[in-house]
Amino acid sequence: MDATITEPAAGGTALVIIDMINRLDFEDAPDIIAAAEEAAQAIRRLRDAADACGVPAIYVNDNGGKWHSDRSALIEEVRGANPVARRIVDLLAPREQDYFVIKPQFSGFYATNLPVLLPRLGASRLILTGIAADICVLFTAADAHMREYDLWVPPEGVASFDARRTNWALEIMAKSMAADTRGLDSQSVADWVAAG
Amino acid sequence: MDATITEPAAGGTALVIIDMINRLDFEDAPDIIAAAEEAAQAIRRLRDAADACGVPAIYVNDNGGKWHSDRSALIEEVRGANPVARRIVDLLAPREQDYFVIKPQFSGFYATNLPVLLPRLGASRLILTGIAADICVLFTAADAHMREYDLWVPPEGVASFDARRTNWALEIMAKSMAADTRGLDSQSVADWVAAG
Amino acid sequence: MDATITEPAAGGTALVIIDMINRLDFEDAPDIIAAAEEAAQAIRRLRDAADACGVPAIYVNDNGGKWHSDRSALIEEVRGANPVARRIVDLLAPREQDYFVIKPQFSGFYATNLPVLLPRLGASRLILTGIAADICVLFTAADAHMREYDLWVPPEGVASFDARRTNWALEIMAKSMAADTRGLDSQSVADWVAAG
Amino acid sequence: MDATITEPAAGGTALVIIDMINRLDFEDAPDIIAAAEEAAQAIRRLRDAADACGVPAIYVNDNGGKWHSDRSALIEEVRGANPVARRIVDLLAPREQDYFVIKPQFSGFYATNLPVLLPRLGASRLILTGIAADICVLFTAADAHMREYDLWVPPEGVASFDARRTNWALEIMAKSMAADTRGLDSQSVADWVAAG
Repeated sequence: MDATITEPAAGGTALVIIDMINRLDFEDAPDIIAAAEEAAQAIRRLRDAADACGVPAIYVNDNGGKWHSDRSALIEEVRGANPVARRIVDLLAPREQDYFVIKPQFSGFYATNLPVLLPRLGASRLILTGIAADICVLFTAADAHMREYDLWVPPEGVASFDARRTNWALEIMAKSMAADTRGLDSQSVADWVAAG
Repeated sequence: MDATITEPAAGGTALVIIDMINRLDFEDAPDIIAAAEEAAQAIRRLRDAADACGVPAIYVNDNGGKWHSDRSALIEEVRGANPVARRIVDLLAPREQDYFVIKPQFSGFYATNLPVLLPRLGASRLILTGIAADICVLFTAADAHMREYDLWVPPEGVASFDARRTNWALEIMAKSMAADTRGLDSQSVADWVAAG
Repeated sequence: MDATITEPAAGGTALVIIDMINRLDFEDAPDIIAAAEEAAQAIRRLRDAADACGVPAIYVNDNGGKWHSDRSALIEEVRGANPVARRIVDLLAPREQDYFVIKPQFSGFYATNLPVLLPRLGASRLILTGIAADICVLFTAADAHMREYDLWVPPEGVASFDARRTNWALEIMAKSMAADTRGLDSQSVADWVAAG
Repeated sequence: MDATITEPAAGGTALVIIDMINRLDFEDAPDIIAAAEEAAQAIRRLRDAADACGVPAIYVNDNGGKWHSDRSALIEEVRGANPVARRIVDLLAPREQDYFVIKPQFSGFYATNLPVLLPRLGASRLILTGIAADICVLFTAADAHMREYDLWVPPEGVASFDARRTNWALEIMAKSMAADTRGLDSQSVADWVAAG
């Protein structure tokens, strides 16, 4: 495992993957599982496209109440939690070179290493993905917007417990956080990078 | 590995161990090695005393330029770096129950999980230890003081590249950060806890 | 003008008034003016009730692009901007004893004095009011929730450019930020204080 | 009073003036008064030189326990406090165009507008001045260094309660915060700007 910074992010862009390494065993998990698994497929396609463009992937993930800062232990535990959690880990497990940031609260910027990592990568434009659209993705988008990051939140890459709330969150991210919320059919990672 | 929070910190106190899991291979490392190894002995005694009192240990440790948030990988790499680094790891390696916070900069409070962990533990009083006294320990003390934590910085538990700078830093922590800087001969962890 | 802290906030509660001292001259201001003026009436009633209960009022207000940190100059300028802005200032102008925090971005917690003021007041429960419901109020609610403040956002006390977005924001604050969003007909400031 | 941002800071530089608008009536004030008044003279010369170079001045000043965010009231109160405080205000009172940031704690970066103002100004290099060298100047320097600002702390422009502690703080800023601590005889504001 390395995850050193070797070169600046292409197009000043990083792909941010929020809380997808997830036990999915909270009380209302059944309401989000199908949508989360679908989002995982889209995020995997985004990550493949990011790889092809030189865009780094940053996992920004809840600590699950364990304060050991041990990504390996965290992933192992999620893998054993249940079949859906394991399928998503199989699809999206971070690689040697991927960055991994542990967050103890909802926003990826609050009390995490992210505010130091992003400038080191030369990243000022973020593709936000993950769960839940109206909680951790929304809070992260708000914090990113205040810190003057440009945002793209592809609707296919986010999910929540309720499709209506996903839509509200997307509309609020578009209106209040100046986020681009175009779908993957109208914009590719390569397009976004080229526009940077 | 667990590191869940099961009960409040005794006496509202946490033992903070800064940057002791360390390759010690930077250019001027020879200047700090003897002092760091001596501090490690004192920190181990403090940790044993903390164990006996119900005071949790929190490792607050530099990421060494690796953004993987993987404590196990970080410790393994340090263990292999050189004999001094390994001896300190052997003495101070974090246990299953110890908290581990990764910091990307000098202060333990800047862009880390610490500001969320401490209130969860009910900790408002910190015993600060580690290296370097005039850099990471000093910066962490400044941030802790502004956030209204009470501080004890036992001189035996800190080290720097230059004994004079260690003393200046201790005097500044006492005067500017209201830190208690009594030595281990005049105050024990049990005394500090009892005064909480 | 004094605004010193003389006693702890009753019921651990502060009334937070966001961006109501406002030129209301941005491009889409006509869309929010009627709703903002109605909210101002409700906020005044809330402030009167807060006065009666010993709950302090904290104005958290945008700097309007002026980095002089001068509340008097800021209020004078708003008063002269246009009739609606002036009517709201007449209704809600801060008094000698009210706290005033200047914010340079959307959230009341981001790069402002608020994170230091609230603990000094002993406030851990916030009544959030002001504009816009889906921007500055929403961002402030997110930050407050992560810092473990309890929130009440009375719908009468907030406004936005679009009644639908006000409702979405309220629903997201209820679901994602554990905010109480009961109206003033079902909960008074005295009720909220008594429940603290 | 305006204090809008009209153009980027020359040489990416801002002159930061810490806590010089000060009642100087705390218990040990007699120990710092002579040194503070001498520093005020140097800061005035620095501010004149900054004016000539297009370098903006940012006052970063304690709120004195008043949470009204009213620079005018704060300055008036200091002016009336005692003759030394008044003489320093006469020498250094902020002008219409100067930026003024109110801080509630020791560091100029903690819970203040400064982290948003500096990027807006395009400032990445700071000339730090003010009191006390081993408290607010030191804490601000630490925070600035972690945020990757380049620092110049001219010894003539800082003062503390004890000349030895001023020297220790300067040495720590040089060693631990990569600060330039050359005196005004070996570097001018114009030199610093030209090197940007």
